[in-house]
Formats: sequence, C-alpha cells, structure tokens
Amino acid sequence: MTAKISELIVEANEGVTTLRLNRPQRRHALSLSLLQELEESLQKIAQDHSVRVVVIASDGPVFSSGHDLGEMQGCSEEEYQKLFSTCARVMQLVRNLPQPVIARVQGFATAAGCQLVAACDLAVASDQAQFATPGVKIGLFCTTPMVPLVRNVAPKIAMEMLLTGKPISAEKALAAGLVNAVVPVDQLDDAVKEYTSAIVASSRQTLAIGKQEFYAQLNMDESHAYDQAVNVMTKNVLQHDAQEGMSAFLEKRTPQWEE
Amino acid sequence: MTAKISELIVEANEGVTTLRLNRPQRRHALSLSLLQELEESLQKIAQDHSVRVVVIASDGPVFSSGHDLGEMQGCSEEEYQKLFSTCARVMQLVRNLPQPVIARVQGFATAAGCQLVAACDLAVASDQAQFATPGVKIGLFCTTPMVPLVRNVAPKIAMEMLLTGKPISAEKALAAGLVNAVVPVDQLDDAVKEYTSAIVASSRQTLAIGKQEFYAQLNMDESHAYDQAVNVMTKNVLQHDAQEGMSAFLEKRTPQWEE
Amino acid sequence: MTAKISELIVEANEGVTTLRLNRPQRRHALSLSLLQELEESLQKIAQDHSVRVVVIASDGPVFSSGHDLGEMQGCSEEEYQKLFSTCARVMQLVRNLPQPVIARVQGFATAAGCQLVAACDLAVASDQAQFATPGVKIGLFCTTPMVPLVRNVAPKIAMEMLLTGKPISAEKALAAGLVNAVVPVDQLDDAVKEYTSAIVASSRQTLAIGKQEFYAQLNMDESHAYDQAVNVMTKNVLQHDAQEGMSAFLEKRTPQWEE
Repeated sequence: MTAKISELIVEANEGVTTLRLNRPQRRHALSLSLLQELEESLQKIAQDHSVRVVVIASDGPVFSSGHDLGEMQGCSEEEYQKLFSTCARVMQLVRNLPQPVIARVQGFATAAGCQLVAACDLAVASDQAQFATPGVKIGLFCTTPMVPLVRNVAPKIAMEMLLTGKPISAEKALAAGLVNAVVPVDQLDDAVKEYTSAIVASSRQTLAIGKQEFYAQLNMDESHAYDQAVNVMTKNVLQHDAQEGMSAFLEKRTPQWEE
Repeated sequence: MTAKISELIVEANEGVTTLRLNRPQRRHALSLSLLQELEESLQKIAQDHSVRVVVIASDGPVFSSGHDLGEMQGCSEEEYQKLFSTCARVMQLVRNLPQPVIARVQGFATAAGCQLVAACDLAVASDQAQFATPGVKIGLFCTTPMVPLVRNVAPKIAMEMLLTGKPISAEKALAAGLVNAVVPVDQLDDAVKEYTSAIVASSRQTLAIGKQEFYAQLNMDESHAYDQAVNVMTKNVLQHDAQEGMSAFLEKRTPQWEE
Repeated sequence: MTAKISELIVEANEGVTTLRLNRPQRRHALSLSLLQELEESLQKIAQDHSVRVVVIASDGPVFSSGHDLGEMQGCSEEEYQKLFSTCARVMQLVRNLPQPVIARVQGFATAAGCQLVAACDLAVASDQAQFATPGVKIGLFCTTPMVPLVRNVAPKIAMEMLLTGKPISAEKALAAGLVNAVVPVDQLDDAVKEYTSAIVASSRQTLAIGKQEFYAQLNMDESHAYDQAVNVMTKNVLQHDAQEGMSAFLEKRTPQWEE
C-alpha cells in the first residue's frame, strides 16, 4: 500500500518557495487535481509573509505539457468549463499574488505549460527549453494560453505559434520577450537564484505594491495610469520602508525593512 | 482593343488562395478600384470553405507603394473619406476573415502597402524587402497605416518610421515583429509554403475560432479576456474536430477533420 | 554674490530647441524646481511655431538620476503628491507636445530619468548609457516610471528592471525598444541630428496631426482606431501641406510648407 503522492511538491527555503510540478509519468501535465493543488498552494502563499518569492519548476525533459489529454475526452460541457476555469484562475492567481513568481523552465513548455511561463512575472529558461502552443494539431486552439502569450510577445510571433503549432527555441523566446534569460541547463539554478536573491533583499511591502499596480494599470490609457500611479507612489513613499530606504541610501547603510 | 485587365489576380490552389496585386506600372499602388477588388474578393473568400489560407502577393521590386497619388490630388472631402474608408475596411476584412492571411513581401512595402503587411496575420519577406511609412515627406502623415503598424512593433520604432519616413530593412522588420521570417528572394515561395502547409493540415473550424478570438480579446483587460477565452475553448473542445483530434493524438493516427 | 543659475538651459537653433538638464552636482536629479522649469518650457514651446523639434539632453556620466532624494525625506502627503503630480504632468506634456521630442541619452538614466527617456517620442543613446528603475532598493517602487516603461518594452523586461533594480545596457535597451539607436558617445550629436534634420524638413502641421493621433489611438480597439484615423487623415489631406506635398512629389520638386 502506497500513500497518494502529491502532484505538487512545495519546498520553502529562506523566503523562496518552490512549487515543483510532480507528474513526470504524464510529462507534468496540468491535470485538474494538479491545478487544484496549485490553486490551494498559491492561495496559502498569498497570506504568508514569510514567502518572498515563488519559483515554479519541474524536472526532466518537459517543463509541462499542458492539459492532460488522458482526462479530456468525452467530458460534459460542465466538466470542460470547470477544467478551463480552474486553469484560468490559477494563471490569474500567479498575477495577483503579492509575491513575484518566476518560472524555472528546464525543458519543453507546451500549451497550458507555455501559458504558465507566460503568466509568471519572470521566466528563466535553460537552452534546452522550447515553447509551443500546438493545440491546432489536435483541433483545439490554444485559446486560453493565447491570453498571456500575446500579452508577452509581438502579435505576429504569437500568431505564428498558434496557427502552426511549431515550437520556438529558448533563444527565440528570449528575443521575443517570453523569457528573461537563457542559460546552460547546469547554470539554471544559479540564474534563478540571481533573481530570487535580489527580490528577497527588497522590501516585501514595496514589491507587493509595485507588482499589483504593474498589472492594474497595464490596460489603462496612459493618463489614467499616471493618475493612479501617482496615488500609489504617494502611499508607498509615506510607508516605513520607503522612508527607511531613503535614509539608508543617503547614510550609505543597509536598510532595515519591516517584516 | 484590349479587355480591361483586372488589378487583382486571384489564384486558387489546394486550399491556398493567392491574391496577387497587379498594377506593376503603378508600383502596385492601392487605387480605389484595386481596394474594391480586394474587398470583394475577401468577402467571397470569407464564405468559401474550400479556401483554407490566403496569401497576398505581388511581383517586381515593389510589393505595394500604398495609395495612388495620381488619383489623390484635389479631390473632395467625400472622395477622400471614401478612399480611406475603403482602405480601412479592406484591412479590417483581413483581420476578420476566418482564414489566416499571409503577406508574401518580395519588395518595398510603403505607406498603405506597409499597412497591408501589418494587417495580415503573418508576413514572410525576402531579404530585398523594405518597409516605410513616408507620408510625412508629402505632408500627409501615414495615420491609417499607423493603426496596425503600432499594434505590431514597439512604439518608438513605429514613431521613428512615421516621423522620419525612412525605410527599415527586412532584418530590422523581423527583429521588430513586423514580419515572421526573412529569406533570400528565391526561397520566398518555399518559406510561404511552410506556413500554408501547416495551416492547410489543420482543422478549418478550429483555426477560424482561434483567429477570431485572437483579435477579439487583444484589447480586453486580462481578466475579461480569460473569461471569454474559457467560453470559446469550451465551445471548441465540444466540437467534432477537437474530440477527433484528441482521439487521433492518443491513438497515434492522423485526425480526420470535418470539411 | 552669484545670480541663481537655472536648472534648465534652453538653447534654440534652426528649429531645434534643446532642453539641457543642468544640475551636474546632483546627477541631474529632477528636483521639484527643475520639473517646474521643464513644465514651463514645454508649455511655451507648445505655442511656438518656430520650434520644430525638441531635444532633452544633459552632460556628464549621468543623464538623470530621477527624483532628488535630498528633498524627499519626511515630507507631507501633500508635498509628495505635488512632486509626483508635477513629474507626471511633465511626462505627459512631452507626449502632448505638438512637436516631436527626442531624448539624447549620454549616460546613466535612472528612475524618473529612465521614465523621461521612455516618455519621449524617440531616444538616441550613447553606448555608455544604461537604464534602471532601482526604486526597490530604497523601498520606493518606481511606480510612475513604470507607466511609460511598460508602454515601451515587453512586460517581462519591464518587470525584471522593476523587481531587481538592476540596470540594462544601451544595447539591451535598443533590442527592447526603449531607445531608437545606440552610437559611440562622440557620434551622439550627429545621430541626434539625423533625426532632427528629417523632422525639420517636414511639415509642422502634418507632424503635429500625426503625433497627436499616434497617442490618441494607442489604447483604442483597432476598429475605433481606424474610424478616428480615417477622419484625421481626411482632415490632413485637405490641408495645404498635403496638397502641396503630393503636387511636389508628382512634379519632382521640393515642397513649400506653410509656416
């Protein structure tokens, strides 16, 4: 008798929480149960001040192959709606999380797996990684993956990925803006750590304020975005961490952030 | 006595319809009559299930020089409005067409010619191609070409093209996201065929659903885009082609799409 | 006794007005008084038909270090609000100015200094320039700089700059779309002159119409953008300069623009 093995491994280490997809036998496909575990974990993390940055990772040649086709045949409309809604909620939880979220992409990221990379705030890829939205090949357009994809890369690049289903290399993903850095696979953890270290060294509250406003103002016209940004920045500067940060800078010392 | 030669040559071949601009003596300028032929052809194609992908092409050193200045002097306000409105309708028909549209750009694409490239879903250019919005040089800002241009490339790149009128190379257009691929001119047809073959192999209905939603959700905030995308994807997955596509994939066979 | 030295030096030369930041002892930080001088100068320029293009420049290793921390500690909410509002008004004046505005970036552009580069229509950088939004390091997220930054570059690039505070090189800024050109520092003035010469040679009214519509339609959905662009282009073509420009082009002579 074996205990049920979790499809998501949660590791916390000095402010960095890693969510490790754990369905290697299914190419880390995002089953409904894995999506639900992600949702639950992200909801907990949102409340946990000890978590300063989140890394989404997996192991092996595939980062995630997207939805699990094995559980997707002949379902009812309600079941499909539930699956896709849960997936969309998870992606938006990543965006709405107060903490920055980094995709650590060691391998192939496909369909909703590619969407997950696009939904993260930052992404670091190994030079073995590839990215594809190949739904057209099975008659199911990658419509929800398209939502964050085309908010990351130029429309003709997104359209090419969506219409042909062909993968792009990590280098092309870097040039297109889908990932922030590409490194040899044995340097992937170090590259991720560069980002997590910078983030952990900064004020938790300041990052939360900034990340929230980043997405809040993205679709506003510039004039409204400025109005709101001025208010947010005024609120930020009145807080302890900004006053402490300015003092520390002028006094050439290390700032002491609030918890 | 010569019969009027059409300004647009329509060629259909195994699901690929090529619309070939045919005003070589006028650098394939988009006269009102050529625009009207394009509009009529695109409206017919929208209803024709045998057309799976459209290629817009021309021959010679110029892809299209934009509006025909020879017919644009001293017109009435109504005539200008009609010309620009017809042009804008053609560009939006390209976007609204259920089938993907590819610009095959062998040469110089200027003003509304550059706009046509920007308006297509995909664009393949020869290394001889160049792109410009030079209206400022004749006192007529490329305002309508600007609309799809700045939805393809970064704003400072679009602004440079619009304010200076200077052309950019095919390579720069590729890096900027205005075209998908650049190849030597003698490989242009093969490069276009790579795209058309992938598209013809996919489900017509799936591509139509995906393309429509691509543009529909572009300007929504992400949350509304997800809500709509979940509904569209649910509708898609319940259709024959998605169920057949998933079965074929799992059974490692070629899917049989509906017509 | 020394007269107060202006924090902004205004130089006019053959249609090109240069606004030179002049606080070298404070790394050209944008103090409230410098922002107010910029605001006043831009308001005057907007009314001055003899100014055809504006260049924002400075000297030394730093283009601008952003807000002046020396005047930002322990202020009241009203004072902060005033400072950030003034800054946001200046940035929007740059966008709303009828004349094109070019940032000439010889050195490091940080925080609101980076914002100023992003807010300009065009930017030319020396290969010594760097760009950063390092507010997180002092607990004050670069929220207002973010507004134009993420309207210039891909979101993951903007997010990396904002979350880590680390600078990007001029070459990376070029690839990302934040600047139009990068040249050795001793060629910077020549590179700027290429842009100003092209702009000064064009019709003032045409550029003003085009620039205004560029930003006006940026956040519209494409269909509304086209409707408005068709009207603007019809208005433009009926004006003297467009009719003269078309005639001059067809007659192969130099056009004579209205003042």
